[in-house]
Amino acid sequence: MIEVTARLLWRQGLRATGMDQIVRESKAPRGSIYFHFPKGKEQLAVEALRVAGAVMTANITEALDQRDAVTAVKKFVAVYAKEMEASAFHHGCPIATVALEAATTSPAIREVCAAVFGAWEDLLAQRMERDGFGKKDARKYAVVTLSLLEGAMILCRARRTTRPLRDVAEHLAESLRGKGRSTRARRG
Amino acid sequence: MIEVTARLLWRQGLRATGMDQIVRESKAPRGSIYFHFPKGKEQLAVEALRVAGAVMTANITEALDQRDAVTAVKKFVAVYAKEMEASAFHHGCPIATVALEAATTSPAIREVCAAVFGAWEDLLAQRMERDGFGKKDARKYAVVTLSLLEGAMILCRARRTTRPLRDVAEHLAESLRGKGRSTRARRG
Repeated sequence: MIEVTARLLWRQGLRATGMDQIVRESKAPRGSIYFHFPKGKEQLAVEALRVAGAVMTANITEALDQRDAVTAVKKFVAVYAKEMEASAFHHGCPIATVALEAATTSPAIREVCAAVFGAWEDLLAQRMERDGFGKKDARKYAVVTLSLLEGAMILCRARRTTRPLRDVAEHLAESLRGKGRSTRARRG
Repeated sequence: MIEVTARLLWRQGLRATGMDQIVRESKAPRGSIYFHFPKGKEQLAVEALRVAGAVMTANITEALDQRDAVTAVKKFVAVYAKEMEASAFHHGCPIATVALEAATTSPAIREVCAAVFGAWEDLLAQRMERDGFGKKDARKYAVVTLSLLEGAMILCRARRTTRPLRDVAEHLAESLRGKGRSTRARRG
């Protein structure tokens, strides 16, 4: 159920996803959904977003363990651009659509989205510190990186092209490449 | 009707906005809405987004007529950060929520969102050319600027803080300040 819900939220957002569709696609008995999630769709959505966020967070953790932030973002963009094209631009960020929909309507859902974004920002900031940025710069560039990717994915999906993602990855590489290292070199 | 619809889409998004609420808040007779918009909510939403987009486009045109892109973005961020706070983070981009919601569900709405984003990108790119950037760079930095602002507004609304908007404005100023001018200086 949670997996089906996460997938539907990813593609359609919160409001377009109804309990009927979740029941139908998960093939779970309706009673068992309401047994596990007595508060209905909002509660199920919170769990689904937590899981989708955690899966993405695990992927980001692994990606950033192995390479510096700029290289990791480049790789992410290459993979995600293909994913977007393959899905006919149905796949974007698994959190963003719901975060905007819930911003004014559901504090519980908004909070889980905020926590997921916060976890991604933390991972990026930690990696950037290891790449040689100072604490304050690492935090700022983490926010910049997330904003660039989230914003570009909106433009990609609206315009059905992956060019914005490629543009922002290029910009990020130009802006940050060498910067962290040179800081470290100066200090070392 | 169009104004009420635009305002509801801005705050709530597409799916949360029903014809009942539009009828109630616009105080228009239901029959007249269906007379003017026989195809119902989708058609009304397309018109409302066109108008909301055009209002924003006019504001952007005016802002970019009077100052370089970096200064204009700084000013936009200062004004918009206040607007977000004053609205308890109900106000974000008037297009983004609906663009994501419609990406997989309504080609007509997706297309009008794409056209609005395209108009904003064109205005930014034209201004950046006047600021001294080459055609290709101007186009790329226009996409970067839009992505930064759109992405930051998602983070602001999810986390109920305006810090992301301020962070990306600072980054943009650092990245672009002097660049266009120095290009022009080198060429001049």
